[in-house]
Amino acid sequence: MTKRPRDENNTLGTKGGPLDGIRVIELGHFIAAPFCARLLADLGAEVIKVEPPSGDPVREWGLKKDGNSIWWSVHGRNKQTVTANLKSEAGRQIVIDLVKQSDVLIENFRAGHLAQLGLSDEVLREANQRLIIAHVSGFGQTGPDKDRSGFGAIGEAMGGLRYLTNHAPGTTDLPPVRVGISIGDSIAGMYAAIGIISGLWQRDHVGGTNQGQPVDVALTESVLSMMEGLIPEHSVLGVVREPVGARIPTAAPTSAYRSADGKWIVIAANSQPLFASLCTVMERPELSEDPRFRDNQSRVNNVDALDDAIQSWTEGLDIEQIEAALVKGNIPASRIYNAEDIALDRQYRARGMVHEVEDPLIGRVSHPGVVPHMPESERHLCWTGRKIGADSDTILSTLLGMSKERIEELRREGAI
Amino acid sequence: MTKRPRDENNTLGTKGGPLDGIRVIELGHFIAAPFCARLLADLGAEVIKVEPPSGDPVREWGLKKDGNSIWWSVHGRNKQTVTANLKSEAGRQIVIDLVKQSDVLIENFRAGHLAQLGLSDEVLREANQRLIIAHVSGFGQTGPDKDRSGFGAIGEAMGGLRYLTNHAPGTTDLPPVRVGISIGDSIAGMYAAIGIISGLWQRDHVGGTNQGQPVDVALTESVLSMMEGLIPEHSVLGVVREPVGARIPTAAPTSAYRSADGKWIVIAANSQPLFASLCTVMERPELSEDPRFRDNQSRVNNVDALDDAIQSWTEGLDIEQIEAALVKGNIPASRIYNAEDIALDRQYRARGMVHEVEDPLIGRVSHPGVVPHMPESERHLCWTGRKIGADSDTILSTLLGMSKERIEELRREGAI
Repeated sequence: MTKRPRDENNTLGTKGGPLDGIRVIELGHFIAAPFCARLLADLGAEVIKVEPPSGDPVREWGLKKDGNSIWWSVHGRNKQTVTANLKSEAGRQIVIDLVKQSDVLIENFRAGHLAQLGLSDEVLREANQRLIIAHVSGFGQTGPDKDRSGFGAIGEAMGGLRYLTNHAPGTTDLPPVRVGISIGDSIAGMYAAIGIISGLWQRDHVGGTNQGQPVDVALTESVLSMMEGLIPEHSVLGVVREPVGARIPTAAPTSAYRSADGKWIVIAANSQPLFASLCTVMERPELSEDPRFRDNQSRVNNVDALDDAIQSWTEGLDIEQIEAALVKGNIPASRIYNAEDIALDRQYRARGMVHEVEDPLIGRVSHPGVVPHMPESERHLCWTGRKIGADSDTILSTLLGMSKERIEELRREGAI
Repeated sequence: MTKRPRDENNTLGTKGGPLDGIRVIELGHFIAAPFCARLLADLGAEVIKVEPPSGDPVREWGLKKDGNSIWWSVHGRNKQTVTANLKSEAGRQIVIDLVKQSDVLIENFRAGHLAQLGLSDEVLREANQRLIIAHVSGFGQTGPDKDRSGFGAIGEAMGGLRYLTNHAPGTTDLPPVRVGISIGDSIAGMYAAIGIISGLWQRDHVGGTNQGQPVDVALTESVLSMMEGLIPEHSVLGVVREPVGARIPTAAPTSAYRSADGKWIVIAANSQPLFASLCTVMERPELSEDPRFRDNQSRVNNVDALDDAIQSWTEGLDIEQIEAALVKGNIPASRIYNAEDIALDRQYRARGMVHEVEDPLIGRVSHPGVVPHMPESERHLCWTGRKIGADSDTILSTLLGMSKERIEELRREGAI
């Protein structure tokens, strides 16, 4: 595999990674496939993002600095970016030529769209039979509803997550809330990464297949796969699980409580020793003797009374006092962190999880670090998300052997 | 590697999988590590779950049939289960002997607990230098707060997810809600799987390292890693992102609306053509000409008026009518599915994502299918979650060469 071109913008240092040696072509837009590609790039894969000449529309999302999306600094990090108009024959050919020298292609168009552009699985695999092709779509590549359009919000609604993300029935007329991020997309991206890397292992280990294969990830199914006992319990007992707000239905106390200064603290003290410690910390030792609270099931049955008792303790103290008391008592608890709390957290800082870097487009910016930590082959952050087509010339000349003249011609034609 | 023992309970059929040939030892309890191991098992890895003789406490969670946890049918599926008391020398030795014949060990004790039991990374790697060791913990294996105890709920609170899972400030006094599942645990489990499989690829591909390595996953960091622009936007502009309930802050209309029959529908029509289609479907063509709604930014600025207009359309119709109209208009939309809606969905059925199987412990039960789909090496569901120690005799005799007498002795001693 050709060596990665030297990175002119890289002020951040680079160091191997478990997927060093793998090349990934991203035909992604918005969130799911690009998030998958970010995970692979964070682990050392070489990712080439192929964008339309107008750029991935996600570059316009969220808050900006000097006209540049700030989220993009993270979402596009560690990737190279090339433009190609897939509706032009020359643009399509660029993808084919890149695929011939790559290990993975990841895309998240509507099912079948890539085939309409002349880039079906058959065409791609004819170009490179070792290619792993990962499709991320709303509903999957097969089945009666494969052509329906779906975004992350639809995946979350149909996967069963949104229904449970609500207060208990009768508590409020407000709708179930969205988890504040496009979590359906991100989870689908993670499943695509798991499928891709599994496919690479199967292809490449000694005695492996030496063949690529397709991976088919649906947003709806990715969410459904996380839903614990929801489906089996319904199938066996006919029970439809209902939302319970800040609580956990099967354990108590575990909820969010308000402090005197109007913050929220999550306390998870549902085991016997933790509950006894909590009663001590609250200076209410009699509660741990109370028959209503004598074991987890009793506490679940009397959770309103229990939560009232805890709330009446927390609302008399400021958040700092509550946290100090609970940490001292070794009780799992935390204020509900907002962005500022995260930025100030010492553990995140110590582990490089709030990591300040210099972005040529927007200046100093904090990124979340690489997850998972693999200290013996760590890669970290090599560069921040770049401008549209920043690597077009380098990639087209180095990898595809194109002349300067040819590249200029493609640019004039609107193919790149 | 020794052949997988024949499965007596398997009425479900088995067929390869991309990770066929990999053996994983799970020292997991509750959710994160066992969910990781389920993902690996779903993809064809042989997973041996080592439980204390009293069993994983998660076996007591959720609803039951004939005393058996229903969720366990899914959470324990495709795994073999062996008991070992890790506080006994014989139990510890069983782990060491299994590790000698395995590729991966995954655990989610509190950081450092396994070392206290005499199973430090050094000891495990001395037994098998090719072992990938994945640690999942609340705060990671290093840093000033590594010894703090943390559950999924704490990871969600400190990762920034819980703060955003709420209605807009001033809308309600109710606390931010929990996403109805232990999503912090599940996401950490997915990151562990990504690290593990990446480590396997790095170890095993031609020219690879032939060495194992540790993987260090924190619940807090796993959640933080999903938070999109939260951290970078705060670092550059000092903005603390606030929750917005059912909406998306940067796009409109995308929210949940109530139907005449009291259901909720999510409609995601924030692009220009989708919004025009929605206006047509609602028979309000004048809205698409309204200057307040002429582009996405205008719609975001006037989102209350926009959502009122959509709500006044949906509340006049039953959910079936709304869905039919929106699907006809090709607008991404779905009712918010509960367990029953999922069970009835034709696409899930067609793709094997609601998959009825026979469980020897609880009878007929529906499982979510395997994600991601990898049609050329699909594995599916081979068996459902088993009783504590169901495979102890087979594994100890087949893999570790123990005699019947020795196994009985260990049982009497309480070591298994």
